[in-house]
Amino acid sequence: MDLVIRNGTVVTSSGVSKTNVGVAGSRIVQLGGEMPADIPSIDAAGCYVMPGGVDVHTHIDSKDGEQPSADNFGSGTIAAACGGTTTIVDFCAQSRGQTLGDAIADWDAKAENKAAIDYGYHMIIVDLNDAVFDELGSLPERGVTSFKIFMAYRGAVMVDDVTLLKALDRAKQHGALVMVHAENGDAADYLRDKFVSEGKTAPYYHALSRPPRVEAEATARAIALAEIVGASIYIVHLTCGESLDELMRAKRRGVDAIAETCTQYLYLTKDDLDRPDFEGAKFVFTPPARTVEDQEILWDALANRVLETVSSDHCSWSFKDHKIKGRDDFRVIPNGAPGVEERMMMVYQGVNAGRLSLTQFVDLMATRPAQVFGMFPKKGTIAVGSDADIVIWDPEAEFTITQSEMNNAMDYSSYEGRHVKGMPRTVLLRGKVIVEDRKYVGSPGDGEFLRRDRYVPRNQG
Amino acid sequence: MDLVIRNGTVVTSSGVSKTNVGVAGSRIVQLGGEMPADIPSIDAAGCYVMPGGVDVHTHIDSKDGEQPSADNFGSGTIAAACGGTTTIVDFCAQSRGQTLGDAIADWDAKAENKAAIDYGYHMIIVDLNDAVFDELGSLPERGVTSFKIFMAYRGAVMVDDVTLLKALDRAKQHGALVMVHAENGDAADYLRDKFVSEGKTAPYYHALSRPPRVEAEATARAIALAEIVGASIYIVHLTCGESLDELMRAKRRGVDAIAETCTQYLYLTKDDLDRPDFEGAKFVFTPPARTVEDQEILWDALANRVLETVSSDHCSWSFKDHKIKGRDDFRVIPNGAPGVEERMMMVYQGVNAGRLSLTQFVDLMATRPAQVFGMFPKKGTIAVGSDADIVIWDPEAEFTITQSEMNNAMDYSSYEGRHVKGMPRTVLLRGKVIVEDRKYVGSPGDGEFLRRDRYVPRNQG
Amino acid sequence: MDLVIRNGTVVTSSGVSKTNVGVAGSRIVQLGGEMPADIPSIDAAGCYVMPGGVDVHTHIDSKDGEQPSADNFGSGTIAAACGGTTTIVDFCAQSRGQTLGDAIADWDAKAENKAAIDYGYHMIIVDLNDAVFDELGSLPERGVTSFKIFMAYRGAVMVDDVTLLKALDRAKQHGALVMVHAENGDAADYLRDKFVSEGKTAPYYHALSRPPRVEAEATARAIALAEIVGASIYIVHLTCGESLDELMRAKRRGVDAIAETCTQYLYLTKDDLDRPDFEGAKFVFTPPARTVEDQEILWDALANRVLETVSSDHCSWSFKDHKIKGRDDFRVIPNGAPGVEERMMMVYQGVNAGRLSLTQFVDLMATRPAQVFGMFPKKGTIAVGSDADIVIWDPEAEFTITQSEMNNAMDYSSYEGRHVKGMPRTVLLRGKVIVEDRKYVGSPGDGEFLRRDRYVPRNQG
Amino acid sequence: MDLVIRNGTVVTSSGVSKTNVGVAGSRIVQLGGEMPADIPSIDAAGCYVMPGGVDVHTHIDSKDGEQPSADNFGSGTIAAACGGTTTIVDFCAQSRGQTLGDAIADWDAKAENKAAIDYGYHMIIVDLNDAVFDELGSLPERGVTSFKIFMAYRGAVMVDDVTLLKALDRAKQHGALVMVHAENGDAADYLRDKFVSEGKTAPYYHALSRPPRVEAEATARAIALAEIVGASIYIVHLTCGESLDELMRAKRRGVDAIAETCTQYLYLTKDDLDRPDFEGAKFVFTPPARTVEDQEILWDALANRVLETVSSDHCSWSFKDHKIKGRDDFRVIPNGAPGVEERMMMVYQGVNAGRLSLTQFVDLMATRPAQVFGMFPKKGTIAVGSDADIVIWDPEAEFTITQSEMNNAMDYSSYEGRHVKGMPRTVLLRGKVIVEDRKYVGSPGDGEFLRRDRYVPRNQG
Repeated sequence: MDLVIRNGTVVTSSGVSKTNVGVAGSRIVQLGGEMPADIPSIDAAGCYVMPGGVDVHTHIDSKDGEQPSADNFGSGTIAAACGGTTTIVDFCAQSRGQTLGDAIADWDAKAENKAAIDYGYHMIIVDLNDAVFDELGSLPERGVTSFKIFMAYRGAVMVDDVTLLKALDRAKQHGALVMVHAENGDAADYLRDKFVSEGKTAPYYHALSRPPRVEAEATARAIALAEIVGASIYIVHLTCGESLDELMRAKRRGVDAIAETCTQYLYLTKDDLDRPDFEGAKFVFTPPARTVEDQEILWDALANRVLETVSSDHCSWSFKDHKIKGRDDFRVIPNGAPGVEERMMMVYQGVNAGRLSLTQFVDLMATRPAQVFGMFPKKGTIAVGSDADIVIWDPEAEFTITQSEMNNAMDYSSYEGRHVKGMPRTVLLRGKVIVEDRKYVGSPGDGEFLRRDRYVPRNQG
Repeated sequence: MDLVIRNGTVVTSSGVSKTNVGVAGSRIVQLGGEMPADIPSIDAAGCYVMPGGVDVHTHIDSKDGEQPSADNFGSGTIAAACGGTTTIVDFCAQSRGQTLGDAIADWDAKAENKAAIDYGYHMIIVDLNDAVFDELGSLPERGVTSFKIFMAYRGAVMVDDVTLLKALDRAKQHGALVMVHAENGDAADYLRDKFVSEGKTAPYYHALSRPPRVEAEATARAIALAEIVGASIYIVHLTCGESLDELMRAKRRGVDAIAETCTQYLYLTKDDLDRPDFEGAKFVFTPPARTVEDQEILWDALANRVLETVSSDHCSWSFKDHKIKGRDDFRVIPNGAPGVEERMMMVYQGVNAGRLSLTQFVDLMATRPAQVFGMFPKKGTIAVGSDADIVIWDPEAEFTITQSEMNNAMDYSSYEGRHVKGMPRTVLLRGKVIVEDRKYVGSPGDGEFLRRDRYVPRNQG
Repeated sequence: MDLVIRNGTVVTSSGVSKTNVGVAGSRIVQLGGEMPADIPSIDAAGCYVMPGGVDVHTHIDSKDGEQPSADNFGSGTIAAACGGTTTIVDFCAQSRGQTLGDAIADWDAKAENKAAIDYGYHMIIVDLNDAVFDELGSLPERGVTSFKIFMAYRGAVMVDDVTLLKALDRAKQHGALVMVHAENGDAADYLRDKFVSEGKTAPYYHALSRPPRVEAEATARAIALAEIVGASIYIVHLTCGESLDELMRAKRRGVDAIAETCTQYLYLTKDDLDRPDFEGAKFVFTPPARTVEDQEILWDALANRVLETVSSDHCSWSFKDHKIKGRDDFRVIPNGAPGVEERMMMVYQGVNAGRLSLTQFVDLMATRPAQVFGMFPKKGTIAVGSDADIVIWDPEAEFTITQSEMNNAMDYSSYEGRHVKGMPRTVLLRGKVIVEDRKYVGSPGDGEFLRRDRYVPRNQG
Repeated sequence: MDLVIRNGTVVTSSGVSKTNVGVAGSRIVQLGGEMPADIPSIDAAGCYVMPGGVDVHTHIDSKDGEQPSADNFGSGTIAAACGGTTTIVDFCAQSRGQTLGDAIADWDAKAENKAAIDYGYHMIIVDLNDAVFDELGSLPERGVTSFKIFMAYRGAVMVDDVTLLKALDRAKQHGALVMVHAENGDAADYLRDKFVSEGKTAPYYHALSRPPRVEAEATARAIALAEIVGASIYIVHLTCGESLDELMRAKRRGVDAIAETCTQYLYLTKDDLDRPDFEGAKFVFTPPARTVEDQEILWDALANRVLETVSSDHCSWSFKDHKIKGRDDFRVIPNGAPGVEERMMMVYQGVNAGRLSLTQFVDLMATRPAQVFGMFPKKGTIAVGSDADIVIWDPEAEFTITQSEMNNAMDYSSYEGRHVKGMPRTVLLRGKVIVEDRKYVGSPGDGEFLRRDRYVPRNQG
């Protein structure tokens, strides 16, 4: 044994134990019992010892046209680590005409020797010609067991229903899970162009051009197409009651439909897009934030186990370099906001408020994401044999979120000024301490590529 | 340390680890790591090491009028143990006019020095006069943190909506959870009396007199009343799509509504009530079994985490002594069927069939019931500090269910002739082996009364 | 021919014709064509010639304990006539222990020689003992083809589910239609007593003690019970989206469920109960008025033909004599408000606003009520052979509602100060002019008892 | 006056009167009263005098590629007339690249001097380029106030969501109503190509490749897009419970969504596609026929006024010349079946069975279609001033449907061998008798083009 975490309260999604954790090499090897006295130890007294966070929705190193995001795999994964997250699954984007293998090679180049935490890829499919269709089936063998499809952004990444059907069917055959960005792109484009033609160019119109029905329609359609071919489906960033209705109807019909929401939909509203001095642009992401009533609905759905994961959808478009481009036309504002670092501390406020239990928090942050995306029980839990990805969480630590103290490369936080209680103190990646007292102490390249398992649908009986 | 379980695969609702389990006294003290070589050990090679089952819906020792059930606390809990269950929560029934304290004393007398496994009580409320209402608030202090209300059986245990409202409100104040038997008793009585008046007295009319709408109506009503007073609610034995609709609508509105189904609804149909030679009487329980389509719906709902527990509703009315009384009039057939022993092995067939994952099986059989009813993490999981209630499950063991090999005192099994694969091999209660190779080896009185924690509602934020 | 109405535009629920109407005796005998020049005529130029209104929900002459309402059959029906209504179906209330025949005799005594317009009775059932149950079947022969059941007001008129089931089944056998006041009386009582116990005694708590779920629950239950016995059902005064959901779900299942709303739910909100100086008491009726959002939902449901009638639920509890009794305790305020006179002019504002077409207005005010309650085509349309119950409606006439100009015996109007455009000018009852230029010109006893036809369910196929 | 119809019972959607009908020129001029004795008269004793049928969904003269349908405007409208229908609204199809004006000119050429009954056009939009988009706004001025959009048949008439949105928005501005063929074309194509690739080429796979969800998805999407732009929408040929759910949800949200079903969905099932000897091909139309359960649901929805019209979707692809082309591949079978002649007599069987009242029958066959499509009160009712389009319906006449006695140019009837009771006896078009004793006695060109009024949405308040 190489390391003992002493005196903490181990929290998993199905257990709370005051016990010590023994680590050997990269794995957890012992819970409870006698531990060697002569090896390094970490005192976790007063703290929770939880599985490291698993954020299955990040765009950690991407481009707006040719302009790179503020974060790259280095800064982005350091930020994640400092927020308690030890695994991300990032979106690997096929360029039009590119083979999937080349897309993976591009992403490997971004990540290798830079990543501070472990990472996997979801493959974004934009062009499903015959060659790509054939190649798709080979991805699961390479550990890429999820495909992402966009139903919005015509002319960029949007695909038609045939492509979605083919992807669903192919995924089903090969043990992959299709994830959809569910917004009716045509409707959103129609509304936003109309607003602009009326001179309504401020960020707030971004929200108005993507009303809940735009999302709910596509959610219903994606689920229907999955149902038609008998495939499973994962809805990313579900934001509102209208879409939740579609999800629940699907579950009632026995469709294996899984949905995530994101931190921002639990705390922000569309009114944030109306902040003065173009500040609203910071909150331009898709789907847009909704209302306080929708926030309540989402919290309830998390508590009720209807929504199964909370991701960050981290996108690092800085205010001064990226967002500013859309000052005269909200359509040009790059969509997205940061959050990989704030995710766990923000969602934890739901525990403080009695919205979630501690075990549910772990389930949403780590266990379910790991299970859904084929990383369990290697990731997502504290169990003998699992990777020693551990966050020592201090429930009494307090912090007022301010960008200047964040570890990502952005120039704003969506949660600026919010006071949180409960923070990661120490973070281990496969047995190695990479964050100490909220300071990053790891090395570039600590993170490894994760070959994920195939997806196993619910109720195949 | 007193005992090691070696070489098994530990399965919890959030983890699967090939590891050893160390037990000291009544608790689990160590997972993984070095274990002493010189203490007793059990070889669990090839087996799953799972938390003992928690069956939160039993009538283990009850009466039909003055006639006692076939099982009492002795035989019933031995049967449970042999089926892999180490905890039951039994229904303690207030007689009309009786204080709740006296009802508990009656139940203590039945259980003490007899129970083979641990047990708690739900208190059935039939008479909520002012004195009882006051007394109700004191039950949680005594570790009785759930109250059961019947919406059926007018003249016997049925209460009106005022009583249900008062119980819900009282429970909310004192940290208890109200459970309802949701059937519109008046409608059922109306229909069954009509059938009998038409000469339709065979068991099959039991099913026809309690159609799904009779259950769904009461389910909706119970949930509505809980919603009106802001209380949580637990629906026992949900059986059909119509009721599931009501549950899902409630969840969508943010009501903290939890539901269980029972083994029999996953395997039996109303056609079983039409078996010849009065055999149908064996399947007379309420609500009645439904259709194959409803079975599919229930399995989906379990897989989707919408239904949260599977109980047995064990009632031991023997065919020759009890059921036979209703040969000329199905209304006289005592309602209920055995199942405490078959529950885990029958539901496990869903794992074999790909309907449930192994972790979901543990969740439904042990973890969620323990969480919902205030016994977690003492019961319902394998974790350091938890009670060493452990079932060593042999996934390769096969068995054809036949009453002559069962351990309960009944003269029939609802699952007679069904072939199962996957069985409990060894069972430990708080560290003591009570079942070995499917044989009961414990002693009367091994089981203790469980003081359960108060109920904490979901999303109080 | 005795009378010609010339130059008007005849509007029925299925036609708009600029044509003359010929009347002989009490009937319409000719539409269009040559009319005799030498007989009396009414010039309806610029006006609509519509069927007289049919208000199927009035308590025109009732008692609060021993205290009579402000209106009796005289003043109440004169008010109705002045508002354009030529037929009411009033609630005839069985006293506990009374035979239904005696109740009818009581009502005959109130109405005979007093009624200004035609009238029928719905029979309110409060006590369904065997004798009454037998008698119930004979009512349709006497032209009383609808029974009213209250699910609220325990200790007064509330019945249990058995009684409702029996009434539904009996009605089905004998061609009657059961109407329900759908509120869970126990829940309302529970909440209101709780408010009072907390010192919350003002009228506004009347609204808070009867939230939408109290109504929706009972709506769902009444429909479920009808479905269980295969009967049709009519929901009186549906007020909100929650109840509409239940209605639509029932229609989807094929239940013959019909629903009405009332004028007050289209124009008032619960905030009206919060008016100062105890003025809120004027708006204490059940179910309470809801929100502006619910008003929109109701208008949509009328436009979409989901709701089929709009009634007044006229109750004449005066402010100074009746309402005042509840100054210190809202529970004592008699429930109800006037409206028989304002109904048609208020709903007509929906035509002006583009919410309803003219033919829909006629359908809601006259045709559907007459069809549903067995008075069609004698009442509710302009057709050869139908009764010459005609309202000549001036779409340009304007009026500001003020109680001093109303014809009922009340001391307030719920719509005081509202400006309307479109008013009845002349009203004929069976060929006799009873209102001229908004002045009543008829004689007591013009109105006759209406023997209504049996109810024919929709889709018996 | 030129003609009297004596002794009949006039039935409208809001009235039933035993009365005479006077006709002068093309109009109804008098109902009831004295009629001249010296003019031609028709004795309608024992018969219903109803408005001529209005069938708003026909493809009376179309092409499968270059091959014309069996019927043209001559035979097709004669068949309609013999079935009691005096007005059709036919689909005028824009060819890709064609102006809408040219499409209308094509249709005028087909219809003029041939049509036996009055006709209007819905314009099918397949190509909405800027010029067409501009032209679209001018159609309502020309009396073409409805546009049809296909969501299926990619490569032929299917359009994308942008086109649908633009059409909806344009229609809203100009008082037109958009009709959609709601099936997800991509999903249907995907499934059918898959079946064929598996060698499943028989007609039955047509039904399996278009399951209910394919229709329900598109129904939901079309409605959502209408909702997003605030437009009204008309769903053609709704067939199943799944789609009905979407319609009802839309009504609940206040969307002005109207839906029709067709005769064939009330009587046929998907099993008809499995008839031997390629006979199943006769029943290949889209969406396919469903199940007996769906038939029940549709009848209920008609009775409950949720579905508002029943059309024929008449397509005359003969068995021997058209259908036969798909003997080896169901995808090549031209979709469609005849029905313009059978529509009224088949739906009337619902009156005989107690599924619909007589007034509802008239509403569904004539009044609602005329109202929805801007032809009311000129068409669709019996009222003074309305066109004298009259069908004298003999409720006692009996007939066994057999193609050899039909008046269309087809070689099969979908209802071959079905016995009906209740038939049109005499039919008048604008005062002229065109059918006598079920024989066509009119002249080519009796029918005129109908300039229809603009659509007025429900509840614009």
